[in-house]
Amino acid sequence: MEKVKVGMLGYGTIGRGVFEIMKMNRAYITANSGKVIEISRVLVRDVEKNQEPLLSDPTFTTSIDDIINDGSIQIVVELMGGEEPATEYMLRALRAGKHVVTANKLAVAVGGDKLIGAAREMDKHFFYEASVGGGIPIIRQINESLNANRIESIAGIINGTSNYILTKMSKQGRSFEEALALAQQKGYAEADPTSDVGGFDAVYKLAIMTSLSFFTTVDYRDIYREGIEKVTAEDIEYAKRFGYVIKLLAIAKLHGKQLELRVHPAMVRSDHPMANINNSYNAIYIVGNAVDDIMISGKGAGAMPTGSAVVSDIISIVKGEPIVEGVGVPKRELGVMDIGETYMQYYIRLTVKDAAGVLAEISSVFARHQVSICTLVQEKMEGDLAQLIFTTHFTKEGSLRQAVEAIEKLDVVEQVSSLIRIEELAKE
Amino acid sequence: MEKVKVGMLGYGTIGRGVFEIMKMNRAYITANSGKVIEISRVLVRDVEKNQEPLLSDPTFTTSIDDIINDGSIQIVVELMGGEEPATEYMLRALRAGKHVVTANKLAVAVGGDKLIGAAREMDKHFFYEASVGGGIPIIRQINESLNANRIESIAGIINGTSNYILTKMSKQGRSFEEALALAQQKGYAEADPTSDVGGFDAVYKLAIMTSLSFFTTVDYRDIYREGIEKVTAEDIEYAKRFGYVIKLLAIAKLHGKQLELRVHPAMVRSDHPMANINNSYNAIYIVGNAVDDIMISGKGAGAMPTGSAVVSDIISIVKGEPIVEGVGVPKRELGVMDIGETYMQYYIRLTVKDAAGVLAEISSVFARHQVSICTLVQEKMEGDLAQLIFTTHFTKEGSLRQAVEAIEKLDVVEQVSSLIRIEELAKE
Repeated sequence: MEKVKVGMLGYGTIGRGVFEIMKMNRAYITANSGKVIEISRVLVRDVEKNQEPLLSDPTFTTSIDDIINDGSIQIVVELMGGEEPATEYMLRALRAGKHVVTANKLAVAVGGDKLIGAAREMDKHFFYEASVGGGIPIIRQINESLNANRIESIAGIINGTSNYILTKMSKQGRSFEEALALAQQKGYAEADPTSDVGGFDAVYKLAIMTSLSFFTTVDYRDIYREGIEKVTAEDIEYAKRFGYVIKLLAIAKLHGKQLELRVHPAMVRSDHPMANINNSYNAIYIVGNAVDDIMISGKGAGAMPTGSAVVSDIISIVKGEPIVEGVGVPKRELGVMDIGETYMQYYIRLTVKDAAGVLAEISSVFARHQVSICTLVQEKMEGDLAQLIFTTHFTKEGSLRQAVEAIEKLDVVEQVSSLIRIEELAKE
Repeated sequence: MEKVKVGMLGYGTIGRGVFEIMKMNRAYITANSGKVIEISRVLVRDVEKNQEPLLSDPTFTTSIDDIINDGSIQIVVELMGGEEPATEYMLRALRAGKHVVTANKLAVAVGGDKLIGAAREMDKHFFYEASVGGGIPIIRQINESLNANRIESIAGIINGTSNYILTKMSKQGRSFEEALALAQQKGYAEADPTSDVGGFDAVYKLAIMTSLSFFTTVDYRDIYREGIEKVTAEDIEYAKRFGYVIKLLAIAKLHGKQLELRVHPAMVRSDHPMANINNSYNAIYIVGNAVDDIMISGKGAGAMPTGSAVVSDIISIVKGEPIVEGVGVPKRELGVMDIGETYMQYYIRLTVKDAAGVLAEISSVFARHQVSICTLVQEKMEGDLAQLIFTTHFTKEGSLRQAVEAIEKLDVVEQVSSLIRIEELAKE
């Protein structure tokens, strides 16, 4: 049987996962691809440290040239992470006539156009299924399964770390700090958790999905971003009472030639399937104009799930998938809406003086800014303070912000304790 | 741009959906496939009735020969439904050197091997994405996205009609009969609902998914089947109290060389994402040995979602997808386990005499048959009757049945009111 040689860049968690899968499912992979796939070279920082390959006989090297210049290598799998030198190496591999598979969300979010362009020029594949949603086949779904659809919107839980933290807060009543510490203990969060809890990781992934779904190029820096650091156990409790669960959502919606793009904590109806996506699981909810809404969920990270997506990309290349996807679609120039122009429902929690006339004063500020109240709960607090929890009808974010700013200045208001968006995902 | 001509068999709901999508998303479809797709001939029973084509200029015909013998038609889309003559027409089309796309679950469940064989022989595609799960791309997911995995199990909500009925029973407290009448009013259920509520439709679909996932050929008649007709509003209420939701599940699990295959109502933990798949939505939950668990959900029926899957299959063929999938995998001979050999947890509701010693008597029967009780609730009923609701630990179905049979014969037992399986889907 014909052999296909693969060069791998990086031998960390996912790299080892790929090796493990190639070994464990060897017979299936060979049968499904019709050829024998062999990882023949692996780029590492230190050859001495990598003396126990899991599979066959790859030659470790510290020189990228050994892989680029090896004419027998047809596919390069990039699992180093980070923008550089990963992007440069992938470009070199493509220009040397090799197909490229990557799990690198940052490199794809930043350099996707250049990488896809280089692949097109050389008539090679550039596949990146593992860059979004770990083992969840979301890229293939957008690219192939839904290609009879005009995609209208995407809503995703695409960061496993923050979902783990929010789940522990919600199910175990923990504070953000406790849940973060637990996530770090379990290896779900890094020592510096900023990229995950701050929403940066989700922003990269949303940029990748959006560029693909809407035939455009999204600069990830144009995506509105808010992390989960300010979500409190109290807000999670109120959310429950109102029938919601708080999730870090990544949202993309197309309005004519304008994209609404945002990553932030949001309340999701507790009877929506997204509400039950817990712990480190990810889910992506897509609306297409023919298929209506589709949701796909699974493990968004980890060596084996992510490795599953990487190996599936390799198999597709080896099988000889045609290189035509999106080739006829000219890139569209789409604007990105200012967050102030978006329409949403909001949950607002205020700490106020417990005195006569307070509610009237606040209500009139809302009314003046065209913010229409949907529900209201008032609760006594310690001392002479009270808590007011509002949810609003659909409101322009700009008006809402002006109202909240004005409310913050009122003498009767101690503080605006929380402001969380409510996302209506349900179709039926 | 190159044109590809398609012949369509049948012009019912899904056929019209396909036309509508081809018209609505014409630019996308052309861009994604790189060619212009044209439906040039449509087989109907009565040409007179079909004078308002939605798109371009298809010639309606009542003769299959007009399509088979038309050398310009490269793809035949079968949307007639039913086993025959659909299967015969598809075989003829394949043997005439045309690719075939179908949405016909019965024809695929019964004649899949023959159809796939004919396609292989002619080096043509036989695609059937729309035959399972409507618009949900489950076939492609099994075939491509998860092809680095050994699939271990499948659990699906794959009949929209019965899910709609169970949802209305659960959310609105309706009886089975009321919910069925509502489903019929809304067009979700047919006048004779047997195929849907009796689990037959789910059995065909499970046979298709299982054959594909486990590289085998499943005879749908070997699948254990129970419908939802006997599910009562009372059982749904008890399920809620125990933290469960009742769904009609289709299950396939591989144990060595034996398949566990069953379609029946089952209790699913209410915090599992499958529990929130409501109304006519479908969901399929797959466990692979690398990716772990993946769930995909969406509209399991309807002209547009099903049409989306059909058109996506057409695009794949037009793009020139390689014909190698599974080619190297020899079919496996797998046995099907007798339902009596499977291990499950059970919910059992008994109506008994409200007298001293009754519980002891029943418990001793369970114990004698190695059925271990997990939870027990006793409730007073009218007259001198009581209700006993048991849930069990994992038990061999054969033993459970013997125990229930023995219990049924006890003088103190009025009747065994319900027996419903509990399915543990959660991985985390």
